[in-house]
Amino acid sequence: MGHTAHPGKRAAMVTVAQAALASCRVARAAWASAARASFFGYAPCLKLDVIDHYFHLDFERTRGLQEQLREALVDAILHGAFPPDEPLPSCRDLSRQLSVARNTVALVYESLLEKGFLQSRPRSGYYLHPDYRELASGPQGGAVSGAVSVEAHDPAAGTARSPSWGARIRQPAGPRQGILRPSNWRQFQYPFAYGQADPALFPAAAWRRAARETLQSKRHRDFWIGDAVDQDDPELITQLRTRVLPKRGIQAAPGEILVTQGSQNALYLLARLLMGPGVRVGLENPGFRDAWNVFAMQNADISLHAVDGHGLCLDEGLADCDYVYITPSHQVPTGVTLSAERRTQLWQQAHLRDQVLIEDDYDADLDLSSHPPPALKAADRHGRVIYLSSFSKSLGPGLRLGYLVADEELVRELRALRRLMLRHAPLPAQRLLARFLAEGDYDAHLRRYRAAHARKHDALRHAIEQHLDGCACAGGSGASAFWLQAPEAVSAQKLAWAASRRSVLIEPGAPHFFDNHPPDRHFRLGFSAISAERIAPGIELLADVMARV
Amino acid sequence: MGHTAHPGKRAAMVTVAQAALASCRVARAAWASAARASFFGYAPCLKLDVIDHYFHLDFERTRGLQEQLREALVDAILHGAFPPDEPLPSCRDLSRQLSVARNTVALVYESLLEKGFLQSRPRSGYYLHPDYRELASGPQGGAVSGAVSVEAHDPAAGTARSPSWGARIRQPAGPRQGILRPSNWRQFQYPFAYGQADPALFPAAAWRRAARETLQSKRHRDFWIGDAVDQDDPELITQLRTRVLPKRGIQAAPGEILVTQGSQNALYLLARLLMGPGVRVGLENPGFRDAWNVFAMQNADISLHAVDGHGLCLDEGLADCDYVYITPSHQVPTGVTLSAERRTQLWQQAHLRDQVLIEDDYDADLDLSSHPPPALKAADRHGRVIYLSSFSKSLGPGLRLGYLVADEELVRELRALRRLMLRHAPLPAQRLLARFLAEGDYDAHLRRYRAAHARKHDALRHAIEQHLDGCACAGGSGASAFWLQAPEAVSAQKLAWAASRRSVLIEPGAPHFFDNHPPDRHFRLGFSAISAERIAPGIELLADVMARV
Repeated sequence: MGHTAHPGKRAAMVTVAQAALASCRVARAAWASAARASFFGYAPCLKLDVIDHYFHLDFERTRGLQEQLREALVDAILHGAFPPDEPLPSCRDLSRQLSVARNTVALVYESLLEKGFLQSRPRSGYYLHPDYRELASGPQGGAVSGAVSVEAHDPAAGTARSPSWGARIRQPAGPRQGILRPSNWRQFQYPFAYGQADPALFPAAAWRRAARETLQSKRHRDFWIGDAVDQDDPELITQLRTRVLPKRGIQAAPGEILVTQGSQNALYLLARLLMGPGVRVGLENPGFRDAWNVFAMQNADISLHAVDGHGLCLDEGLADCDYVYITPSHQVPTGVTLSAERRTQLWQQAHLRDQVLIEDDYDADLDLSSHPPPALKAADRHGRVIYLSSFSKSLGPGLRLGYLVADEELVRELRALRRLMLRHAPLPAQRLLARFLAEGDYDAHLRRYRAAHARKHDALRHAIEQHLDGCACAGGSGASAFWLQAPEAVSAQKLAWAASRRSVLIEPGAPHFFDNHPPDRHFRLGFSAISAERIAPGIELLADVMARV
Repeated sequence: MGHTAHPGKRAAMVTVAQAALASCRVARAAWASAARASFFGYAPCLKLDVIDHYFHLDFERTRGLQEQLREALVDAILHGAFPPDEPLPSCRDLSRQLSVARNTVALVYESLLEKGFLQSRPRSGYYLHPDYRELASGPQGGAVSGAVSVEAHDPAAGTARSPSWGARIRQPAGPRQGILRPSNWRQFQYPFAYGQADPALFPAAAWRRAARETLQSKRHRDFWIGDAVDQDDPELITQLRTRVLPKRGIQAAPGEILVTQGSQNALYLLARLLMGPGVRVGLENPGFRDAWNVFAMQNADISLHAVDGHGLCLDEGLADCDYVYITPSHQVPTGVTLSAERRTQLWQQAHLRDQVLIEDDYDADLDLSSHPPPALKAADRHGRVIYLSSFSKSLGPGLRLGYLVADEELVRELRALRRLMLRHAPLPAQRLLARFLAEGDYDAHLRRYRAAHARKHDALRHAIEQHLDGCACAGGSGASAFWLQAPEAVSAQKLAWAASRRSVLIEPGAPHFFDNHPPDRHFRLGFSAISAERIAPGIELLADVMARV
């Protein structure tokens, strides 16, 4: 909304630069919400009296003036702030009162005319369209009327009490550990945040082109406004099958693929369908906290297994696991790649012990090595691997698009469960992504992205070697982060706090350990969100902070 | 993809209209998938031999020629079909072989140059960009290599077996009843389908405008590529709070609103958090099948209650319910509106018995009555009503966007659960919708939509009165469907089958009854997807069919 605590200055279209607090007189509000009222600057009112109001527009620097003005006027119309039979303020008056160009006001009025909110009368000005006049006639005709009458008829109002939610909630989902970065991480000058997209690398132009295509073509639109019930976009399935999965060595039939709302959604679906008390699930420790959260919520019996320089340690405790959740390409959080020997052994054991492997290949498309090992799923001929990945790392986590490859029977059941949970991922986004892939834009993007990523990777490795030589460093080869161990007696949590005061964001490693007393010497340095030129100075600062703690 | 069983004809840009089966000679495929191979017309191949191939393009009538050609070429490049050191076919050759205009080929080559797939050499032609040359050097350098090597190392291959999914799936979600229409419903000439959007009424231009804005502006893009963890788009929350909910008389604080992936998702979240064995939930019978499905999956104790002309019957069995799920505005499937008297009584009982009401206001924005009663939630001052609605009926179910309003404590818990389930609804779609609402486009759309809807409603009511006077008819006032009861001895299921042979789609009512032996005389006529002029002829046909069964 146009209201903000930091009114900005605009030079372009505004005659007097300080447009803030300019006022425009409008009459009669039928609108009862105090929240809205404070925006428009008029008092809540349920009476029919004519009240004089002033509304002010605190223009935001980062948004178009027309857009903000149009929004404010639409709001005023829908909330009945304009009298039904009088003209709206003239362009001249409004432009003077708000200190914006007259042309701006004229263009906004024209667009409201086009949208059907206003009528124009020659030599008289703009009036409310008849459809919107009754909104101005007070609560009796307005939308909020009924609420009042129900309230009046509520005979239980006297004895009313609130439900006791604590007693009703059978199993709280939160708070659980797992949010690893402050929500204001973008405001850090040196954000070594993990897994967040760098807006500068997003393929905006190609994405726009694909969006335009899916919005304009009737063929696409007829598809994506509809209800797919439990199905996915067949065009996206084709693209995943022919363009995305083969890069990881995976051949899959359409019935073996499920589009998910990101990997988080895949983990939840699997846990809900397959896990429960008495079902034993092996996890890497340290490992992916949100997998632990989801499995624990299903009351699965979780078994923890150490990680070394070759990846997950295949200890004896794995023997009685029904499932093994693993991040073989780049172990979360260490970045270590599972060795060829361990892969073979894991396979062998899984077959002998009738175990199912859940392979989380979360950064499938970003590997920087020249010949990354294929997915475990690539060699699976018996549906023993459930493979998951997403576009969160390569495009952006906000898109919430991922995929799962598994045995057809299992996918059918997951699909039935997903139908009850959310039906399917939004179809416009599925089709847009399908077009983006079909046109080769994703491959072109990955090529540029990987190049930029490799530059950052090398810059960070070099800076670590130069400035943080007291820290042991794991992973790194092809991964999107470095996992470090601080010198003895340094607490990573305290280091993170001290660094944040110098605007350096690092992620303490403790939340990745599932022990009761997690070690506090590890931290992760991600480089997906930080710009290349900030990396060296950021690490220098961090080294300086470390020397002081 | 370009491949189709029905090659179409194009007049515009194609010299020889029958472009199908034109062939273009390309060399050497490194690609092993038989599915892809059949598209390009070359045989699967893992050897390095040079093989001569032909690929044909069966152009689809409904898609742009450039788009299809570009897709086919990108596919061929990514699958290593072109030799690394030879020029691609010249524009002239390719245009002749495919019988498309030379200019079309030239434009496609130019776009591939721009995307970085090709290089141009003066007086020599187009070559693969070096980045894509290694794809052409066979399996050793290609993406599928690793799969083979893992396979070779798999020592368990001999003893391998598939997991037994039947034993592993703890509680199958499907198949449950509830898919009420055939997936090919759009192919019916007279689709009296319920709840499906009419593509002709979608506000495509305004939606495109909002999409363009959110795609172009850096402010929006920086937001929507990011990870909101467990939050929603604050701009959408503002719009729901100030533009959408007040129309139903609801005032809500931001913390009382949760954006859901449609109402289905809201029901699932509620059931997962609040329901289980021993928790008693009252449902309307007939009622909304997918609510029953979701509650039953949580093993809730479901109690069924009849519906009459005043809505849900408040019988004694409701007394020990912990929750009452209700569709008061237009009961599903009958369309009946809960009477004022019943509302008061329901409220009173809920307070006295400490019951929570789950109000599904699924078609909140579509009511055609001049003064629809407000939502039950409008009078709720104690968080005793959980309110849900969505944009599925007014914009399209494919968008998967809805919202839930409830007590802040409950919303906090639902948010924590949703974080583990899918984090949040995709942010680009949330922001797009927020802009669409902020600009007044949604209100302008609803005005047009309701007018068109009212015309269809009247046409259908008239046709029913004229041709189906043997049927009892419920609901109708303001609802988006009519619920009919066929004359005695007519089976609605048999009627639906017979009608489908005349291309008339009606929905038999039995799946809405939760009894073991549901009555088979009811059916529902929806009018959201059918065009106005088809309504009268469709009902005439239906009457004719009914006379014969």
